[in-house]
Amino acid sequence: MPLSNVIEEMAKDAREASRRLRGLGRTQKDTALKRMAKTLLDRQEEIIKENEKDLILAREEGLAPAMIDRLTLDKHVIGAMAEGLMEVVGLPDPVGEITGMWKRPNGLQVGRVRIPLGVIGFIFESRPNVTVDAAGLCLKSGNAVILKGGSEAIHSNIILGRLFAEALDETGLPPKAIQVIPTTDREAVHILIGLEELIDIIIPRGGEGLIRYVTSHSRIPVLKHYKGVCHIYVDSSASLDMAKEICYNAKVQRPGVCNAMETMLVHEAVAADFLPAMVKQFRGAGVEIRGCPKCVELIPDIRPADKADWPAEFLDLILAVKIVSHMDEALDHIEKYGSSHTEAIITNDYNRAQRFLAEVDSSVVLVNASTRFNDGNQLGLGAEIGINTSKLHAFGPMGLEELTTTKFIVYGQGQTR
Amino acid sequence: MPLSNVIEEMAKDAREASRRLRGLGRTQKDTALKRMAKTLLDRQEEIIKENEKDLILAREEGLAPAMIDRLTLDKHVIGAMAEGLMEVVGLPDPVGEITGMWKRPNGLQVGRVRIPLGVIGFIFESRPNVTVDAAGLCLKSGNAVILKGGSEAIHSNIILGRLFAEALDETGLPPKAIQVIPTTDREAVHILIGLEELIDIIIPRGGEGLIRYVTSHSRIPVLKHYKGVCHIYVDSSASLDMAKEICYNAKVQRPGVCNAMETMLVHEAVAADFLPAMVKQFRGAGVEIRGCPKCVELIPDIRPADKADWPAEFLDLILAVKIVSHMDEALDHIEKYGSSHTEAIITNDYNRAQRFLAEVDSSVVLVNASTRFNDGNQLGLGAEIGINTSKLHAFGPMGLEELTTTKFIVYGQGQTR
Repeated sequence: MPLSNVIEEMAKDAREASRRLRGLGRTQKDTALKRMAKTLLDRQEEIIKENEKDLILAREEGLAPAMIDRLTLDKHVIGAMAEGLMEVVGLPDPVGEITGMWKRPNGLQVGRVRIPLGVIGFIFESRPNVTVDAAGLCLKSGNAVILKGGSEAIHSNIILGRLFAEALDETGLPPKAIQVIPTTDREAVHILIGLEELIDIIIPRGGEGLIRYVTSHSRIPVLKHYKGVCHIYVDSSASLDMAKEICYNAKVQRPGVCNAMETMLVHEAVAADFLPAMVKQFRGAGVEIRGCPKCVELIPDIRPADKADWPAEFLDLILAVKIVSHMDEALDHIEKYGSSHTEAIITNDYNRAQRFLAEVDSSVVLVNASTRFNDGNQLGLGAEIGINTSKLHAFGPMGLEELTTTKFIVYGQGQTR
Repeated sequence: MPLSNVIEEMAKDAREASRRLRGLGRTQKDTALKRMAKTLLDRQEEIIKENEKDLILAREEGLAPAMIDRLTLDKHVIGAMAEGLMEVVGLPDPVGEITGMWKRPNGLQVGRVRIPLGVIGFIFESRPNVTVDAAGLCLKSGNAVILKGGSEAIHSNIILGRLFAEALDETGLPPKAIQVIPTTDREAVHILIGLEELIDIIIPRGGEGLIRYVTSHSRIPVLKHYKGVCHIYVDSSASLDMAKEICYNAKVQRPGVCNAMETMLVHEAVAADFLPAMVKQFRGAGVEIRGCPKCVELIPDIRPADKADWPAEFLDLILAVKIVSHMDEALDHIEKYGSSHTEAIITNDYNRAQRFLAEVDSSVVLVNASTRFNDGNQLGLGAEIGINTSKLHAFGPMGLEELTTTKFIVYGQGQTR
């Protein structure tokens, strides 16, 4: 059967499964999630055996040791996957919530009720644990999911998909609710994003190339984020100790993630007090500083920043630093170079804090806290399937609720127009 | 200047304007809306003069009298447009609403606040009054809008855009907040939907061809609805008088709109009591009935429905009728042929009413009321910019709130991870 038929059949099966899923109560879904967790633990030898096939290929192809490390599924990693599913069991079920209900002058009672999106196409390049996280969150929110993972994890993903189908079947749920596309052919992505009649939403997770490709070619709505060029503005009234702690955390704690700080903006009134010690601390952690002319004037051995540094998502121990004359200059800089992802202000000035929160057009805007808090778990959404930097549907981290939508229900007594 | 540069400049101006708009309070926006309404009335002679140019071209091109009628702007129509804007003045401002706020264990105070989407590209084929409605709703929700109307209304749309820019300028708002693309070149649509860095959302309103074109080619998220194949299921326990009134209303009151009934499903237990009189009433109003074999058996002079009738959006005085043996058959039919738009059940059975509401996956699901109520005004959203049948962002009618999104704001005291 040609690949396009295979994937279309999978999508049809997913749609059929989604019809069953949307009527399920929390207990049924949680029972299945628990069984999925148990299956992972009970059948870990099979998983490890399939994973070994991926590891052999990865070593043959000379993948970097860090990549091989991330690909490896051992007892410890599988245990963490199962725990992840049990955490989803503990989260409330968003489906069925009445988000509002009101009465119209003609007596119609109109309400909005939360429902699953339907069928989700999830395309990712990351480690096999994403397969488990995505499967768990989609099932809990009543959605069927078709997973297309990275080619280097194909054997691992296929066995995970097969075990989940078994667990679903054993607990009376449609096994086609969670399906893994069983090929490394990239054409599969192209086919998947063209099935607009069968799939409701596409979530790509991976490098900018993948995401741009999916966005350009998809006929289905896409939730995605391109990049996080996150800023912290250290205001003239900041507590400099707090600023140092937060900026250090935002840059150094995990530099390779999208909510790490990439550019630090410093008010000129505190630059001389703040920057030398801060730069020293950053350098102690191996951070390379690239500064504006005023920075270089203040600390001559700083490498001058060039044009490309301001819009850059370094994802590395590199930081662009700019001294600004006033808060407006900081706001303009963020407006011009920011990616609508995450920005923070460090200040003790009430009015500037409020103005920053109001005027910065990013998915998460913080006062006196690290940009690293832009994360579904950290913000209290319970779990996260991704971060969306387009404004539609869900701006920012997406949890279970963001995998649902609302429909209108109307109770009438014979009303006509 | 080439058209692509013209439109890109407009989009840049819109983005700049949207930065100003998102900080405005309700009073400033309402003042501008009132001025826009007043300008329409004060300058109606200019509008009528420009509209006359469109009418002359329309007559030369032999447009149907009904189309010419819809294109015509006279004192009465312009008065209604101004009233429409004044109604928007009366609606609450969705921007700035805190939709939730909570405290995290580490002391972070996390909230979600409603913000405008940013820049909206609105592409439509309809009458010039859509220009006014869309401009008013976008402004009230703090969005800049770029309007691309139908070519037959180009002179009317341009003068409306110019007058609105004046009104905005006079009230201290950025005149580029409302812009009309001053060309009939269809290439303009293609350029507009490619400007993903500048425009946040595209709303197309018009025929299925336009909407499919926009969805296939846009790199920007699209809110749209293809078609409304709306069903009413007359259950065995329905009050047949109520069913007759509602079905008649849903088909006949305005057959050319998306929330009119296209297929009527009737439980076989009441078919003999219900259908003959209902069909007679429909025929009295000029409705052509196309029936399933059981219908034809019951009423021999009914034209047999063919395959193409079940998924059809007739938008006309035509109705497909199917007799079903039980409610499941009705639900299956809706699942197969429905367009996720609007479906209603007529019943006095409590459990079937609740089951229909729960299981039908459409943007508006009604019990004992006409499908014609799927409308932003009728459901109490205050106004409507369109109906969305994709599940993302807003499923169903979209009012002011649906032209906004939420961002997270975080109040910290020095928290790091």
